[in-house]
Amino acid sequence: MKPDSNISPLAPEFFPQLPEIAGVEAAIGRAGFYKHDRPDLLVIRCAPGTRAAGVFTTNAVGSAPTDWCKQALAATRGAAGGLLVNAGCANSFTGPAGDAACKRSLEAAAEKIGAPVREMLAASTGVIGVVLDDAKIAAALPNMHLAPVRWPDAAAAIMTTDTFAKGAGATCEIDGVKVSIAGIAKGSGMIAPNMATMLAFVFTDAALSAPILKTLLRQETESSFNAITVDGDRSTNDCVLLFATGQAKVPPIPDAKDERLAAFREALSEVLRDLAIQIVRDGEGATKLVAVNVEGAVSDASAKAIARTICESPLVKTAIAGEDANWGRVVMAIGRADQPVRKEMISVRFGDLYAARDGMVSPDYDEAAMSAYMKHAELEISVTVGPGAGRARMFTCDLTKRYVEINGDYRS
Amino acid sequence: MKPDSNISPLAPEFFPQLPEIAGVEAAIGRAGFYKHDRPDLLVIRCAPGTRAAGVFTTNAVGSAPTDWCKQALAATRGAAGGLLVNAGCANSFTGPAGDAACKRSLEAAAEKIGAPVREMLAASTGVIGVVLDDAKIAAALPNMHLAPVRWPDAAAAIMTTDTFAKGAGATCEIDGVKVSIAGIAKGSGMIAPNMATMLAFVFTDAALSAPILKTLLRQETESSFNAITVDGDRSTNDCVLLFATGQAKVPPIPDAKDERLAAFREALSEVLRDLAIQIVRDGEGATKLVAVNVEGAVSDASAKAIARTICESPLVKTAIAGEDANWGRVVMAIGRADQPVRKEMISVRFGDLYAARDGMVSPDYDEAAMSAYMKHAELEISVTVGPGAGRARMFTCDLTKRYVEINGDYRS
Repeated sequence: MKPDSNISPLAPEFFPQLPEIAGVEAAIGRAGFYKHDRPDLLVIRCAPGTRAAGVFTTNAVGSAPTDWCKQALAATRGAAGGLLVNAGCANSFTGPAGDAACKRSLEAAAEKIGAPVREMLAASTGVIGVVLDDAKIAAALPNMHLAPVRWPDAAAAIMTTDTFAKGAGATCEIDGVKVSIAGIAKGSGMIAPNMATMLAFVFTDAALSAPILKTLLRQETESSFNAITVDGDRSTNDCVLLFATGQAKVPPIPDAKDERLAAFREALSEVLRDLAIQIVRDGEGATKLVAVNVEGAVSDASAKAIARTICESPLVKTAIAGEDANWGRVVMAIGRADQPVRKEMISVRFGDLYAARDGMVSPDYDEAAMSAYMKHAELEISVTVGPGAGRARMFTCDLTKRYVEINGDYRS
Repeated sequence: MKPDSNISPLAPEFFPQLPEIAGVEAAIGRAGFYKHDRPDLLVIRCAPGTRAAGVFTTNAVGSAPTDWCKQALAATRGAAGGLLVNAGCANSFTGPAGDAACKRSLEAAAEKIGAPVREMLAASTGVIGVVLDDAKIAAALPNMHLAPVRWPDAAAAIMTTDTFAKGAGATCEIDGVKVSIAGIAKGSGMIAPNMATMLAFVFTDAALSAPILKTLLRQETESSFNAITVDGDRSTNDCVLLFATGQAKVPPIPDAKDERLAAFREALSEVLRDLAIQIVRDGEGATKLVAVNVEGAVSDASAKAIARTICESPLVKTAIAGEDANWGRVVMAIGRADQPVRKEMISVRFGDLYAARDGMVSPDYDEAAMSAYMKHAELEISVTVGPGAGRARMFTCDLTKRYVEINGDYRS
């Protein structure tokens, strides 16, 4: 978070003040997966009774840690005693050796924090195809000390190519009882829906069951982590984990539809969306944050498919990098989304300025106003594609030479 | 074709010698759609009796010229008297005004070459959203003169951001009668299957019916123009037109399955693939031509979906630009194609060098040999994804800073 010139120009000014979550402690350390001297290891201890839920990458290759988490959460029905996160090695596409290394690293972490191994969760990001060197983790653990979570440090410890640490929090009430939410995330490149190369860990002190957590997390992920794309590349390791320590004694809530959860759902949604947008703000090489709104589609899913095609079009993204309101490319992207659209009803707006209206260039098209608008760091592109009720909102960033530079020379 | 420093480093050394096609004449001119002094207009006259077929973009927005061609070919059952091609204005997303301008330009061209308007075909590429200024075309036509086709000049007249003119030809026999094929194409950016921002016009003197032409063209497009991708952006204007003048008197062929067409089919396929690969060689900013082979998929379609995901992954493409054999990103792309794969059977080869084998890094992985291989201008990436019989081969190029540069400042 120091004012380094490498920090994304779209970074928030400061890391937000996050609430303390009773029942969560953290230890930070350095296993040495990176050559340079920086923390790359985070261990979280959750109070006994904590419940958790996760959503995971839909990438068919997956990784040892995501495989472990899915199996562990199923086996314990969501009981979670702790979490081990490492940056610098994804432990993906590493076969049985990777699975064994993941397990050994969790055994060491479990012993450290006094939790059952079966209740441990794991997350890794970094290079694909290298087996996790768990001996490095075992060697680092003795020097790590559990303490109340310092969120900026925890967020920094899970960064890879991120240029700033990402956090978001909220407080609200469930049936008159105050509860808190705090989350951290990482992600910068290989970002696409379902999910992105990103990790997010969100903690609440509310006493909520694993099925409720799972339902809320799945639903609220749709408009947050599944509504962002940097480059359309979806990694092997993505996961969002939601933990509830139960230290705030809310009355028993039977299911996720309970109306007493309305404020909590909204607060959770806000935290997830905030973290998701921070990831786009840290998109590799990004200089513009772009919200794409689609309306008039035959369904919300169709609207989202169109929004995603616009968000991932290299020609749209390079035009934005060049501050060019190239609405013809937006029209092209609408047309290639393979969704039902009514050509003669298509309109395209940049901010409040109409570029196209009713299937043609707008009669009040104003090149000068448009060029001035495109100089902003945060842009809104809104399109109408027909008479339907389907709508969607997605977030992306521009495609710059810096993206190519960063990714043409990452591994070596 | 002069040795300009802007010419793609992957360009062929020279424009090939193409056969003359009896029954085809061309006139080249300048309507002035570009500021700089270069031809941007091509008129082709086809001998009476010529039959034609086309495949067109699947972009839902389309354009006035592609709409016209589809309607004209249906109305005349494939009778084609001529072709008008302009570069610099796509006449796409221009509503009824664009349709009227397209028609007027064809009327002028039809009069020029003495063909019925209803037998005229049209193709435009360039900026989207601007109505074709057909008066410029009408003004240019009197200065244009029909003559036997000079293929390099015809190919140059249809270029937009292309850095070299593209042509391919072949001769073969149908039932003992010698026939010839000559084709030209344009395309550089907005290149994706179904189809790319590309135009291709292929002519033969063989006497073949419109239904046969249509069948052959559709089938042979699959492994040529529908097997290339530069940036995944598919334009509003793409088309491939195949004309048969009937001047070479081959015996009547009843349908496309006729065995006497075997050599012709093969020659046509070769011409289409050659033109398609030249388009990839001219991919905006490209420094590497990459063939991606997928085998072991559950079907050919599934293999093609995986190949396309690899070909369009920004992370794979930037790694190639950086001459980095980043096979982890290839594995990521396989996994995000949403196709059935057997993780433990995945292998990845660069050329003949195994990077991954049986779901893990290859035991004989050789970083030095791999790095040396990546320095080649033409690369092969081959992956196995399971035990199936499905296979596919696609072509792409790398993603460089030059691509961003070209597309961040094209319209203005």
